[in-house]
Parts: sequence; structure tokens; C-alpha cells
Amino acid sequence: MKPITEIAKNIGLAEEDLELYGKYKAKISNEALARLQTKQSGKIILVTSINPTPAGEGKSTVTVGLGDAFNRLGKKAMIAMREPSLGPTMGIKGGATGGGYAQVLPMEDINLHFTGDMHAISTANNALAALIDNHLQQGNELKIDQRRIVWKRVMDLNDRALRKVIVGLGGPLQGVPREDGFDITVASEIMAVLCLAKDLKDLKHRLSKIVVAYNVHKEPVTVGDLGVEGALTLLLKDAVKPNLVQTIEHTPALIHGGPFANIAHGCNSVIATMTASKLADYVITEAGFGADLGAEKFLHIKSRSAGIYPAAVVVVATIRALKMHGGVPKHKLADENSAASLTIGIANLKKHINTIKSFGLPVVVAINRFMTDTDQEIQTLLEWCKEENVPAAITEVWEKGGEGGLELAKRLLSTIESAENNFKPLYDLSDSIEEKVRTIVQKVYGGKDVEFSAKAKKQLIEFEKFGWSNLPICMAKTQYSLSDDPSKLGRPYDFTITVREFKPSIGAGFIVALTGEVMTMPGLPKEPAALKMDVDEKGNALGLF
Amino acid sequence: MKPITEIAKNIGLAEEDLELYGKYKAKISNEALARLQTKQSGKIILVTSINPTPAGEGKSTVTVGLGDAFNRLGKKAMIAMREPSLGPTMGIKGGATGGGYAQVLPMEDINLHFTGDMHAISTANNALAALIDNHLQQGNELKIDQRRIVWKRVMDLNDRALRKVIVGLGGPLQGVPREDGFDITVASEIMAVLCLAKDLKDLKHRLSKIVVAYNVHKEPVTVGDLGVEGALTLLLKDAVKPNLVQTIEHTPALIHGGPFANIAHGCNSVIATMTASKLADYVITEAGFGADLGAEKFLHIKSRSAGIYPAAVVVVATIRALKMHGGVPKHKLADENSAASLTIGIANLKKHINTIKSFGLPVVVAINRFMTDTDQEIQTLLEWCKEENVPAAITEVWEKGGEGGLELAKRLLSTIESAENNFKPLYDLSDSIEEKVRTIVQKVYGGKDVEFSAKAKKQLIEFEKFGWSNLPICMAKTQYSLSDDPSKLGRPYDFTITVREFKPSIGAGFIVALTGEVMTMPGLPKEPAALKMDVDEKGNALGLF
Repeated sequence: MKPITEIAKNIGLAEEDLELYGKYKAKISNEALARLQTKQSGKIILVTSINPTPAGEGKSTVTVGLGDAFNRLGKKAMIAMREPSLGPTMGIKGGATGGGYAQVLPMEDINLHFTGDMHAISTANNALAALIDNHLQQGNELKIDQRRIVWKRVMDLNDRALRKVIVGLGGPLQGVPREDGFDITVASEIMAVLCLAKDLKDLKHRLSKIVVAYNVHKEPVTVGDLGVEGALTLLLKDAVKPNLVQTIEHTPALIHGGPFANIAHGCNSVIATMTASKLADYVITEAGFGADLGAEKFLHIKSRSAGIYPAAVVVVATIRALKMHGGVPKHKLADENSAASLTIGIANLKKHINTIKSFGLPVVVAINRFMTDTDQEIQTLLEWCKEENVPAAITEVWEKGGEGGLELAKRLLSTIESAENNFKPLYDLSDSIEEKVRTIVQKVYGGKDVEFSAKAKKQLIEFEKFGWSNLPICMAKTQYSLSDDPSKLGRPYDFTITVREFKPSIGAGFIVALTGEVMTMPGLPKEPAALKMDVDEKGNALGLF
Repeated sequence: MKPITEIAKNIGLAEEDLELYGKYKAKISNEALARLQTKQSGKIILVTSINPTPAGEGKSTVTVGLGDAFNRLGKKAMIAMREPSLGPTMGIKGGATGGGYAQVLPMEDINLHFTGDMHAISTANNALAALIDNHLQQGNELKIDQRRIVWKRVMDLNDRALRKVIVGLGGPLQGVPREDGFDITVASEIMAVLCLAKDLKDLKHRLSKIVVAYNVHKEPVTVGDLGVEGALTLLLKDAVKPNLVQTIEHTPALIHGGPFANIAHGCNSVIATMTASKLADYVITEAGFGADLGAEKFLHIKSRSAGIYPAAVVVVATIRALKMHGGVPKHKLADENSAASLTIGIANLKKHINTIKSFGLPVVVAINRFMTDTDQEIQTLLEWCKEENVPAAITEVWEKGGEGGLELAKRLLSTIESAENNFKPLYDLSDSIEEKVRTIVQKVYGGKDVEFSAKAKKQLIEFEKFGWSNLPICMAKTQYSLSDDPSKLGRPYDFTITVREFKPSIGAGFIVALTGEVMTMPGLPKEPAALKMDVDEKGNALGLF
């Protein structure tokens, strides 16, 4: 690693523009952020993927390696990614910093406390919860219905025992007893708010609009009604500044914000993406899950809200994952006789390519090569792309770092140069909520129709009354299938999506449509990763990967 | 403020010895901490006080001002203090960074997230709780009795609704239902462990000994039994490094660790105090509450465990507080006719002076002057000190900074030079737990005797069996009185202290003796300080004081 001051210098940031967190991490100061706003913006490249499978696609790895590749080509490029949650780190190791030679460093810090953003968000979330319960205890002036408090507490941990709890027990001096529950921090609306806010002022405005409960007249009660948006903003004043780190190849990376990709929009912060685009000519950024969720939300929620539009979209696919979409179980992926499955599975990729095209955006396919892929399989996929007239490139960034992404980078540069970019959202905000959901189901998922539960229908009437109908939709759907049934891989047809409930995230500025069960507080496995973690006497982390 | 690198340079620390957190905060690296261990130690000056009153004594302010005064005298001095909890900051503003011109900076940062130590401790505490509940859920191999889990979750907030909760509700997939509760983070045994650990290795060893539950055979189950001491140490690897900041007068200060002063020992970390003593010739440090709790625990727990002995002890008193101890209510403190009350109240000071003397330590009285004090009142107190043959000095550090502490600093230097120092603990570790408690009650509190509840007596038999009898005692008693009755101000006599229960803190290495009710999770007031907090568009904190 190079000192982060040196990395910063290469993108025109002086030491006084940074707030250092050790030698290899820094936040960018408010002064620098304000100064940069007048600069011209570079081009955004959005990295998304086919529907994820247990075989692994390597979207983050491709994002990192692509940034490195652009720099190897002499282009001024930056990476803008989400920051990971500590919960999964202690549970089943995932690793959200890329992999192999395409990684963001310092890996240990980023996967542990990093610069404290998650902790600040947890604190703001839970301070709000304490203030709500204190309001009940101190006379309940706002007439909050204690059965209709929707604001939950959070922990940045996997802790299933906290999913459903009763708080306020122990008698009249210990609070008002009521049902409550904890989510993991990345599921907090405050995370989504922080990631969509353009600056401190916008952050405070959005925080004030968060609905925390309903009163005895069933009207929404907001953070603004409680009068604590100032305190919450104060708790977030540093968390809102983007974090500068570097890749193994010294490409500058902003790792900032990490909202859930189901009940939230699953992209890193607007402030980080905007800042990166002011500092570099090319910004490589990613969105959670597959293109049906991550890219759709990036384009309908983040792009629309912040005016950030991609110059091109990369759809990452692997031979292994496509074979799984074609029906091959994971333990048989190494078998040769799966040419037919690959062809069937490609239908999943095809749908996502067409979705991106329907937004009017240029698309490039990244074939993230695994060592087990045969030349014939790769050839099959490359030929298919050629027939479909979609630019494609093989990436080998895990093994080779930026060098393994050069082909993709070149393909992107020529595509951005030559292809047309006529971005247009698939729905208008003025469409009704039902219409907006239907558009997503039919145009993005390729489904037949959408059904709304009786509860959902009742909510729509209320939302209309509260003036929430013109917000974009945030779909909470399984990431494994285009449909709402995780077992339907490949390219399912003729399916109907059922919306069982809506969840208003008015601070973030979207309406969540819940399909199926959504897990917002993971549990730990029988043998948690924590059992293997340690630190040596010099302070070096052990067992993190 | 000067850049923290400059402050560090003055005490012989190079930039590579620091891990910067912005421009004005830094942690000291493991390499520097290891290198310093071989250096000779400077002298420790412990600042304590009479029993605290609502009138205010200003112990932290005197600690800061005294450090500044030593530096004005050309002595190489450092300050070692506790770091504050966020909970009270959001509730009723206290401010744990001193006051007036005797303050540690940057005040906003120290009172908010600082360098993330509190968050790391909360995370380690709650990760342990999640791992315990997961152990229950995944088959309970250790046969933990779910009714006898003593490890509680924490939040660094004032949140009364979390004092008593039920977790694990919602059916067999959501965990095992059981009673639980949340403490404020500073009450976590992990905070006490971190503050008594000498290094990372000692930290891990202490963590492994923490008792989290009892099994169905009523035997203790420890962190070591769960096999997660490595993971917890990893989560604390940065939190264990002391934080360097500065006073308004640029005196270097280590602000690190802040355990409760009732159920824990109430002193900043051993690592910080030790490190300061290697970097400076004089270290000014404080202990929580009055001398009956803070100083007693410093000397019996921290000194004994770490081999850190004070060269002298300062007892801070104010005319106002002494008058309250003499029976004057707070709203009548400005009245003139309270000479008699002052004389009565001085008995409280006298007891604390004699306690320090009984430890064989030199003592100096700091009379922390308020603007409302009359010359005659000050004269009365000074003459009393002269008669008692106790060195005393007036301090005016709130108004005048270090200059207001020069007299005290000079008095301390001459006392350290001339007075005898024959430190000896008042009890031996080999004494029985009952004897140890009795010694504290009789010699430190000046009480008649101690009574043990039936439960406490039963616990003592168990503790003997578990091999815990040779640990020091940590008394949890009201800070307002020498007795266990907060209304008995001044110098009560003939009182009996009742120990209702013991709490083993085996990782920290002490047995807590609980007298009366101990609040380990504060609540918010009707008008929380949070309502006045805000941040301007440039990111400046508003309403923090």
C-alpha cells in the first residue's frame, strides 16, 4: 500500500483535503467536497450481473479489476463501492472488498470497524429509537400509538435472537412495554438516507421526513415531529463524508455506504459516486444483486434522485453461474457434458442485457473466467454475444489484477465512444404505485403480471392520502430469480409477482414493495467465522479470510 | 489547536508512531507502545475529590488545569483521563472534557464518536451476546442454563426501554426466548477488561476468563469455553491503543477508556496511564466519583494490577460542595451565613484526607475556587488545612487555565520532593472477601460494620469453590455519601453497609459488591439535550454545550 496522501495527490487532493484514519484510510473533508461540486463530471460505468448463484459471479472483483485496468490504460479512473457490514464477517465470511489480485485495501480495516460509518449509523438509528420510547414514557404528547411504532432498533451483527423482542418491561419506571425488533444496521432507513443524500442539508431534510410511527389517528409521525433531525445529523456528520482507500494496484477507491439491496436500493452513496466523478474521468461503481434488482434501483432511484447517469453498464456473468441457471447443480459444475445447460442458462443473461438496453443504455458483457471453464464453453458464450450484437470481453482480474481487465476496459472505451446513450427511466414518477410496480415486473423481470394483497391495496389508499404516491418503487424480491420464487432459475416466463405489503421509506424517498419473506436480521451459522478469528501479539488480524 | 503530530513531537513521538484520526486526534501505534515499555516511568499524580454534590467539584477541570500548570512550570507533564459515553451527551449534558479554560480538545469529537473505542467495545460485547444466543440455538453443547445467562447486551445510549427485555421470540427459527437486558456500554465488563489490560496478550487472556453464564450444573461458562476470545480481541485491536489529544494550552493528553465507577473501577486505561508515564515526567490522572470509590479502587485495583503507584494524591474540594456537606441546600449556597455549615462539611474532606494518608501516600488539597466564594470562606478552609498539617492550594483553572493551577502544581512538586511515600494497600488479596469488604467499609468509609444478605453469603461459598476469593473488591455504592445512604452527607458515623449481592467480574479481575440499587442503563429526561443539537451546513456541531 502507498500512503493514502500519495493516492490522494494523484487525483488532485491535497493533505488538507483529507481527514486521515491511520496511514491508509481517509475521509474527504467538507471543504474539499464543496469545492469539487463545481467541477465537470467524469463518466460513470455501472457494474451489475446476472441473477446471483452459489457458483459466484465476482461482480465486486470485476469492479475493482476494471478500475485497475482503466488506470493501466492511462485513464484517470476511480472505484466507488459499498462498505461491508460487520455481521456477515463474524458469521459466514463473504468479503466485500473484491478478491485475489483485484482487491481494495486495507482489507482487515474495511471489513472490521473501518472509519466508523456503520457505528455512527447504528448510533443515530438507536438514539432515535430511544427518543421515541422516551417520548412515550414522558407523556406521549404526539399521541403515538405504541402498537404502531415502525422504527426498529439495529445492530451491525448477525443476531437472530433480536429479531423479535419485547422492550420496556420491569414496571412504570422502566418504560412502556411493547413489541419491537432489531434489524442489521445496513437495513436501517438511515443507511438508505445517508446514501441518497447530496449533502449535509439534504441529509437533515431527508432524516426529518422519516416516518417512525403512526399516532392514535393513524397519521404518520416523523423525525421532524419529534424535533431530533438536528441531533441525528450531528451523529452522522462524519459518516456522511466518503472514505478514500486504494486497490492492490493503487487505484483510488471510495468505499462509502452500503444499504441492503432488498428493502433498500443497494448502491454506495451518492456523495461518493458524485465525488469520484469530479476527481476522475471514469468511475467504476456497482449495484447489489443482479441487474433486476441492483441496476433497476440504481437507474430508477439513485440516478433519478441524484442526476447520476451511467455512460455504460457492464453485466458480469460466469460460465459456472450460467450453467447453474441452465439447471446444473453446484456439485456437478465441473462436469463437461453441460453445453446444453450453458445455452439454456444464457437466457438469464439475455434478459438482463435487454433490460439495460430498454433503459437506452450501452451494455457490455464481462465473462469472468474461472480456471475450470473450458475453452469451448467460453467460445460458446462469446459467439452468442456476437450473434446478439453485444460487446463482450473475458476478464481474469482475480488472477491477474488490472491486466486481466484490459480487454473489458478497451471494449468499454470503444462502446462509450460509439454506442448511443438515450437513458430514459422505464416508468414516470407520476404513474400510480401499481403501475410502477407492474412496469418493473413486466419490463425488468419479464413477468406476466403483479398481484397485490388485500393489505397492500389498503395501504395504497392510505399512501395516496399521505401524498406518497409519486415516489419511486424499491422492490424487495429474492435475488436468485427473476421471479419471486428463488428456485426458478434461468429465464422464467408467465409468472406473477405478489406484493404482500408496502413499507414507506419516506426519508430515503421510496416505497418498498415486499414480495415474499425478507430477512432483515441474519443469524449466525453453527460454526461462525468468529471461532477462527484472532489477532497476534503485534496486532495483526488472523482468520479474517 | 496545534496539529497532533506537533504535540506528539514534543513528547518524543514521531509521525510513524501515530495512527491519525483527522488532524487533532491520534492513536499510538503498537510498535511505539512496545518500544516505550523499556523506558523509565515518570511520576503519577492521582486527582480525586470529596463526595460529589450537585454543587460541582470540578475534578476533571482541575486535572486538566494541573497538567497545563506543570507545563507552564517547565515540567514535562501529560494528562491521562477517561473518555466519555455518548449516552449522557444525548441526555443531560455533562461534559467529560474539563471546562472553561481547562479543557481537552477537540471537545465535539471526544464527546461524540471520538476514535470509535466505545463502538468497538459495544460491538465486542454484543457479538459475544449473539454468539451465546447462537450457541443455545445450535444445540447448546456447553449445556448453558438459559435462565442463568449473566452476559447482557449494551448500547452507548441512555435507553430505559432496554433495561429489561425478552429476546428470542417468534418461534423456533428465531432463537430461544429468554429474559435479557441492556446496559450502557461503559458498564460492560469488556470496558473494565480493556482498561486493566497491559497489552493485547493480556487483553485476550482477560477476555477468555469472563463468565457469561452458568451451565445446568451451576458451573461458570466463560468466553474461553465458547472459544471466541480471539474474535473479541480482534474487534478491540484498535480500541486498546490510547488516544492522544491536547488541552487548550497544548498539553498532551491521553483520553482512553471509561469504565463505570460503581460496578467497575472508574479509571482510564492502564495502557494509557503507563504510556503517559513513559512519555512524561509527571502524569496527572483522575479516578471516578469521590476518594471513597475512585481513589480506593485506583489504589486497590488498578495500582495493584498494573504496578502503577501515585507519587501524590490531590483531593479536590469546593467551598460550595463542603457547605452542602454541612447541610446547606443548593438554592441557598449563595447565602453568607453558612460559616458553621462549612466547618461541619469539612469533616467529609477530612475523612478522605485521612484515607489517602492511611494508604501511606502524600496528599494535597485543591480548593477549586468559584466566583461566589467569599474570601472569608476560603480563609477558613486554608486555616483548617494548616492546622491539620495538610498542604493546600487554591485553583482557578476554569477561569485562568494553567495559570490558575500554578500554586497547586508548586505545592505538589514540593510535597513529592519532601513527603514520605510508603504506599501499602489496606487489605491483602489473601484476606477473605468478607474481610476485604469490611476493611473498605471501616477504613475507607469510616463505617461501623458490614452486613451480607443471605444471597451474598451463599454466593461467597460458591466463589470460594470457583477459586475467586483472592480477587480484589470493587464496591458499588452511592457516590454521594460515605455510607450507602445518599442522603447522609458530611461525615456520617456508626453506619452499617449492606451488601445485597456480589457480581463476579473475573475477566476484569475483581468481585463487585453491590450495595443498594445500581443503575447500569440511564434513561433520558423529559427534554433531552438531543432536542437542541444540530450541525450547520459546514459540518460544525451546534448545541453540544
